[in-house]
Amino acid sequence: MAARQRNISVSEFFLKNRHLLGFDTPAKALVVAVKEAVDNALDACEEAGILPEITVEVRERAGECRVVVEDNGPGIVESQIARIFGKLLYGSKFHKLSQSRGQQGMGISAAGMYAQLTVAKPLHILSRTEGDALASEMHVSVDTARNLPDIHRRRRVEWDRPHGTRVEMEMEAHDQPGPRSVETYLRQCAVANPHVTLVYRNPAGAELRFERSVHALPPLPREIKPHPHGIELGRLIHMLSNTSRRTLLQFLVDEFSGVGRVTALRMIAEARGRISARSYPRHIAHAQAAALHRAMQRVPVIAPRTDCLVPIGEANLISGLRKEVDADFLIAATRPAAVYRGNPFQVEVAIALGHSGAPEIEFDQSGRMQRRKGAAESAPRDEPVRLIRFANRVPLLFQQSSCAITAAVIGTNWRNYGLNQPKGGLPVGPVTIVVHVASVWVPYTSESKEAIEPTFEILKEIRLGLQECGRALAHRLGRDKRLRQEYDHRSYIEKFLPHIGVALQEILGIDDIERDAAMRTLDDTLHKSRTI
Amino acid sequence: MAARQRNISVSEFFLKNRHLLGFDTPAKALVVAVKEAVDNALDACEEAGILPEITVEVRERAGECRVVVEDNGPGIVESQIARIFGKLLYGSKFHKLSQSRGQQGMGISAAGMYAQLTVAKPLHILSRTEGDALASEMHVSVDTARNLPDIHRRRRVEWDRPHGTRVEMEMEAHDQPGPRSVETYLRQCAVANPHVTLVYRNPAGAELRFERSVHALPPLPREIKPHPHGIELGRLIHMLSNTSRRTLLQFLVDEFSGVGRVTALRMIAEARGRISARSYPRHIAHAQAAALHRAMQRVPVIAPRTDCLVPIGEANLISGLRKEVDADFLIAATRPAAVYRGNPFQVEVAIALGHSGAPEIEFDQSGRMQRRKGAAESAPRDEPVRLIRFANRVPLLFQQSSCAITAAVIGTNWRNYGLNQPKGGLPVGPVTIVVHVASVWVPYTSESKEAIEPTFEILKEIRLGLQECGRALAHRLGRDKRLRQEYDHRSYIEKFLPHIGVALQEILGIDDIERDAAMRTLDDTLHKSRTI
Repeated sequence: MAARQRNISVSEFFLKNRHLLGFDTPAKALVVAVKEAVDNALDACEEAGILPEITVEVRERAGECRVVVEDNGPGIVESQIARIFGKLLYGSKFHKLSQSRGQQGMGISAAGMYAQLTVAKPLHILSRTEGDALASEMHVSVDTARNLPDIHRRRRVEWDRPHGTRVEMEMEAHDQPGPRSVETYLRQCAVANPHVTLVYRNPAGAELRFERSVHALPPLPREIKPHPHGIELGRLIHMLSNTSRRTLLQFLVDEFSGVGRVTALRMIAEARGRISARSYPRHIAHAQAAALHRAMQRVPVIAPRTDCLVPIGEANLISGLRKEVDADFLIAATRPAAVYRGNPFQVEVAIALGHSGAPEIEFDQSGRMQRRKGAAESAPRDEPVRLIRFANRVPLLFQQSSCAITAAVIGTNWRNYGLNQPKGGLPVGPVTIVVHVASVWVPYTSESKEAIEPTFEILKEIRLGLQECGRALAHRLGRDKRLRQEYDHRSYIEKFLPHIGVALQEILGIDDIERDAAMRTLDDTLHKSRTI
Repeated sequence: MAARQRNISVSEFFLKNRHLLGFDTPAKALVVAVKEAVDNALDACEEAGILPEITVEVRERAGECRVVVEDNGPGIVESQIARIFGKLLYGSKFHKLSQSRGQQGMGISAAGMYAQLTVAKPLHILSRTEGDALASEMHVSVDTARNLPDIHRRRRVEWDRPHGTRVEMEMEAHDQPGPRSVETYLRQCAVANPHVTLVYRNPAGAELRFERSVHALPPLPREIKPHPHGIELGRLIHMLSNTSRRTLLQFLVDEFSGVGRVTALRMIAEARGRISARSYPRHIAHAQAAALHRAMQRVPVIAPRTDCLVPIGEANLISGLRKEVDADFLIAATRPAAVYRGNPFQVEVAIALGHSGAPEIEFDQSGRMQRRKGAAESAPRDEPVRLIRFANRVPLLFQQSSCAITAAVIGTNWRNYGLNQPKGGLPVGPVTIVVHVASVWVPYTSESKEAIEPTFEILKEIRLGLQECGRALAHRLGRDKRLRQEYDHRSYIEKFLPHIGVALQEILGIDDIERDAAMRTLDDTLHKSRTI
């Protein structure tokens, strides 16, 4: 039996379990492949301070798609290209505590692995860094048995772009229009990233442009250090034995977020062991580390810095959403940052009330109430709300049911806010709910990054954000309801006005002109007194 | 930017994403750790032809648990211990196409990694192979930066077991009684593995024994080769370039399941390319391989052998379930094997009807109908059915909602089979539904192996199994309903019998004794004629 024990390469593992990376069906594979390439392009542009401009092209033929994603980013130095596209678990974002779209170093190589499995053609990459005379062209695949890149062809070529990267891949894939399509992904991506211009040439040959509405880059998220609260004992021991600091005091001050000299000294005193401010970190034994760990949890520490997070912002969310949804009423809330397991995160919520749930009553130019034209053809009222989920500005299109965002929406009592809600389900109504979770480390439910793990702290923050927007929604829905009632009352009186006129005419013996004038005065008086 | 690109070790990745391996909360961590150790023990015993006898002990103190799992298995040779327990993605089952509980080589090392993170103590292993004079004792942890084992202590010790393995781990964990507890896991494990004896010493100090009811091992699943239908092009090319066969004919016959000389020659002819039976596999170019791949899908091939699968069996499922559930009616169905993506799999379904849904009417010894005693106190009728899920004989306790089994149960129309079912939900009633999916490769939705990916073929087979059992259930529920109606009719007549007696007495002028005799005869006649 011993002889059969073998190493399993991480690529082999994910090749056999490709559904874990999102490559389970041809329709989904296409969206995931585009998403991985676009995410990488956006991260690279922003990190280099370039306003992103990305072109996506998909062509389909006989069950296979050719996907091209091209950006105006900083480009990749030639020595890194092969590993970035031909090796799983290789990247710059895993070891860094700051908000970014990618975090695993797997996505694009996984797309390449899938391409290779289904069509057996390597990725075709073209990349040029600024100042480089020529671009580097490479055909790369993953050597799955060793998880190392396999370079099929490499040469230096002319390219009209001064800098940027172009990835071309062919794979078994299928463009399926609808709520989980490349077009939806790009459309939602534009909502969450108003500073990006996206161009999409779809399989039908049409070109769709999503122009940027904001002409400045969001601030670059800053890297932070781990917060002492929520750090696990094992991680502390690992940090102690790997630090280059020569005293425990220095270690605590330099390697943690929010710890100054005073806090560090208090922690050391609290630990009450045989450690002191001058202990050499690498020599601290297990029992002392455990005591220090307990002390670190007890001593109060300021909340972690939040410039590692870059929320979309309430104004941007509303203006982005306005492009997406034909809404009468929009409200957004950006929550203050919170922490789970030592990782800062921040929740944003926006709610849009579509026309059909909006008041069907409006005021005309003279200030008179009237029923809105076309109110009858509006969307059905008994559909569940539309839920748009974002994590670190990336739209999440799949696995809605296992996501923390869905759980929080279902767990909120929407009857309080004027919406119907079946037991254990999404609320019902012509409403769009947008939730964005930004974090230095988003706990996804799988490597395909399609849903957020419902941890206690994240659920709680999403719920608070929903409640904040829910209250504004309730206020608006209440006003709409009152307006509708007003209108009904007024219509009723209006109906009887002519009869009152006739009766008045008989009693007072006035002529038709006097009667009509009296009625107009009465109507106006009624109208003014009842108009809100 | 290039300078920040780094390798990410697979252990680092899973340490940061420990929820993917099931270690998200202390309560779940305990169940998962026990499960991983027990699964390994069962696999090892069965492979060595030993009737498994496994002891699990859990002690809890101040938020930490000490877990000991000991088996009578073949033991592990000393040179392998460190890598099996101290390295992720190392094992004997990943590259093998045959049914086993483990398949990734991750579970037990992940438990060790979690132990190290939370309590910072290595795993303590004791193992002895048959014939070895002493046992090997080792303390092992995972060096996460390199994904390599770290041996803290190693020595040879006396052990009273002739062969077996004992794993001891300490971790942040919590025993939470209920449907997702260690006890439930072991109880369900005994249902799916009637040949195993399990002993559980729980944190309260009590000892629970689950004795084997079958005294023979199930047949050992045999390893198979991939089936040509469903194999991906990339995999074929990989096999072609790694084979040691010297001709294409030999390659097809030796490395695929169900392909003989005639079938292989037909495939080669169908490919119509510049390849022949004598082509050297490693020299076949991409275009030719693609043509061969298409041809392989077109030529009919016999279904794969199914001795790679070992279902529990209808009789065993029923007898196991009888120990678990107090049921009046049990039915089981083992479906014939089917194939998804070239992997054989087999579905088993069992349904148990609990007392409260069972007929409240029974026959006494004299053959008379009567209402069952205690029928009133039976379980509520409006609870959803209980669902017990197994994959390769392992109970699945978590993530029920994202599992193919749940999807198939919800997607079946249970009204056809006499059960109520809310829209989009599980059916309602005092019923237990058991589903077992056995496969040479179970597509789990995550590395924690808690739910099965709902692929089309697997969903379909589960549905067919449910329908098969559903029909028997409908038949039984129909009979129960008829019985209840019968009983109601009879009670009604019985109520009027005395009045009929009095009337008869008056009309015929008979005495009380004659009247009572006549009534008894009438009652008996009615009874006999109406009893089913």
